[in-house]
Amino acid sequence: MDISSDHSAAPGQESQSPTLVLLSGGVGGARLAQGLEDIPGVAITVIANVGDDEEMYGVHVSADLDTVLYTLAGRQGPHGWGMAGDTFRVMDHLADLGVDTSFRLGDTDLATCLRRTMALEGGASLSEITAEITAAFGIRSRLLPATDDRLRTRVQTPDGEWLAFQDYFVLRKHKDRVMDLEYQGGETALPAPGVIEAIESASAVLLAPSNPPLSVWPILAVHGIRDAIAAHDRVVAVSPLFAGRALKGPAAEVMDSLGLPPGTAGILEAYEGLLTDLVIDIGDAADVALHGDGSVSLHAADTRIADRAASRRFAQMLIEEIL
Amino acid sequence: MDISSDHSAAPGQESQSPTLVLLSGGVGGARLAQGLEDIPGVAITVIANVGDDEEMYGVHVSADLDTVLYTLAGRQGPHGWGMAGDTFRVMDHLADLGVDTSFRLGDTDLATCLRRTMALEGGASLSEITAEITAAFGIRSRLLPATDDRLRTRVQTPDGEWLAFQDYFVLRKHKDRVMDLEYQGGETALPAPGVIEAIESASAVLLAPSNPPLSVWPILAVHGIRDAIAAHDRVVAVSPLFAGRALKGPAAEVMDSLGLPPGTAGILEAYEGLLTDLVIDIGDAADVALHGDGSVSLHAADTRIADRAASRRFAQMLIEEIL
Repeated sequence: MDISSDHSAAPGQESQSPTLVLLSGGVGGARLAQGLEDIPGVAITVIANVGDDEEMYGVHVSADLDTVLYTLAGRQGPHGWGMAGDTFRVMDHLADLGVDTSFRLGDTDLATCLRRTMALEGGASLSEITAEITAAFGIRSRLLPATDDRLRTRVQTPDGEWLAFQDYFVLRKHKDRVMDLEYQGGETALPAPGVIEAIESASAVLLAPSNPPLSVWPILAVHGIRDAIAAHDRVVAVSPLFAGRALKGPAAEVMDSLGLPPGTAGILEAYEGLLTDLVIDIGDAADVALHGDGSVSLHAADTRIADRAASRRFAQMLIEEIL
Repeated sequence: MDISSDHSAAPGQESQSPTLVLLSGGVGGARLAQGLEDIPGVAITVIANVGDDEEMYGVHVSADLDTVLYTLAGRQGPHGWGMAGDTFRVMDHLADLGVDTSFRLGDTDLATCLRRTMALEGGASLSEITAEITAAFGIRSRLLPATDDRLRTRVQTPDGEWLAFQDYFVLRKHKDRVMDLEYQGGETALPAPGVIEAIESASAVLLAPSNPPLSVWPILAVHGIRDAIAAHDRVVAVSPLFAGRALKGPAAEVMDSLGLPPGTAGILEAYEGLLTDLVIDIGDAADVALHGDGSVSLHAADTRIADRAASRRFAQMLIEEIL
């Protein structure tokens, strides 16, 4: 299935017990993490975006961390967020009390956020409480926030207004054209403990099929992470695009409004200077002829990981044929 | 039904449209408030104890305020706390995450607390958010916290340990003998806006059949409230005791360990210098012969207000025969 432009690579040579780092946003990264975790012998550390984090209803919501958490626990909600079978008693009563509950947090999802908030208010770091919650969910992989410091993605709309990420993404349903992005706090945020070490000791670093500007760039904005990845000899991105469009979310629109070229070329430019390999969908196999700055090997494969079985198949292919 | 020791009083003379202030702890005060509210033409302001307030699960719990709130809304839980028909999804998941959930907050009850916490963190005062929540519940009476400042009841056990109120009351099921009490913050706490004015303009001040040391004294500990009540010409307490015992809660035990005499005499001493009238249960009618310091009129009546109908009958009697 792998149509590689770089036949000098020796597929599978490091596949015995890979130690992988996966940079992840929400759903796409969570699914890939689950697929990788399903492969015996694979150890993964997920470094999750926290630019989407927000305080709401008095709790600290970590949307991407929790999407990965719930997915790895096999308990993710049907729309890619929240927990399966969750109820909304707290939201319903908050609405009765006049609170705007457009951002719907389920009761058990809220409990996760409350637990995190209690720990943060008690002086724990985000990575400490994430480790505790991850253990409570019985998750085998390591899940790290990119940073324990405050980092907030904001997007600028055409009329010059800056929106908090969740306002843009959830409340306004990512309909606004994104003219600019900023990662508030990114210039001073330090990597969470273990992040750089995990990257340096990984057999490969994977960039999940997440939205590059909205989900992966905020991770790269944390001081030292981009450099550590650029220095790694195996950095493989999975494109979130299919014929130039994401299956879910505004990746193509945001990349376009930020001036990136469409499709595979845009992904190459979004990750310029970082990648050794880029996996694109088999439907875009013609793009394998593209070489970015010439140093990136392109691979075409079936990248539709709509369910756990497909994620596992894709992960198996990644490990056997590309890593 | 009123067996009064003070036949010079003219019962009913102020009963046309009484404006009442009720000092209240939890269940007993909430029931009396509901009974009074059911009498047409009666306007009540409930001044609730906040010494039981506590931060837990990251939210500000106001146990007595909310018991009054839910009871006046006709939505109180079956055991005198929380909301009727509540679920415990958040608690169950917090327990899964390793949190001690001995203090069980229902999902909708938690939502009330979250709403309050959000407002407090946003700079609102406890009385402001209480007014907003009360309005959202459609409650006609006025509900005021005794103070907007931090006031916390703590109890000392025989081994000298000081316990936070909810630890003593809920977690340790008020089994410890209470050797001493303190109302942390009481010396500097100021009455919430409207409290003193409500007392001064009331046709009568009622002290609910709540636990005097644990529920009413913390209200009196707020600067200026005791003096305003002492200066009022009609202050009527309802004893929580029946043959020397409370129907619920440790009033008799706490009064005893604090050195107060048993039964009616103890109530008179607990409220020394404040009362013009004390209503005791008909079963204790023999105590009407007691006169405290001589200035207190004792009345015997059926004070068992176990349900809404009984509360209404008792309130009607209070208004027609005593106030």
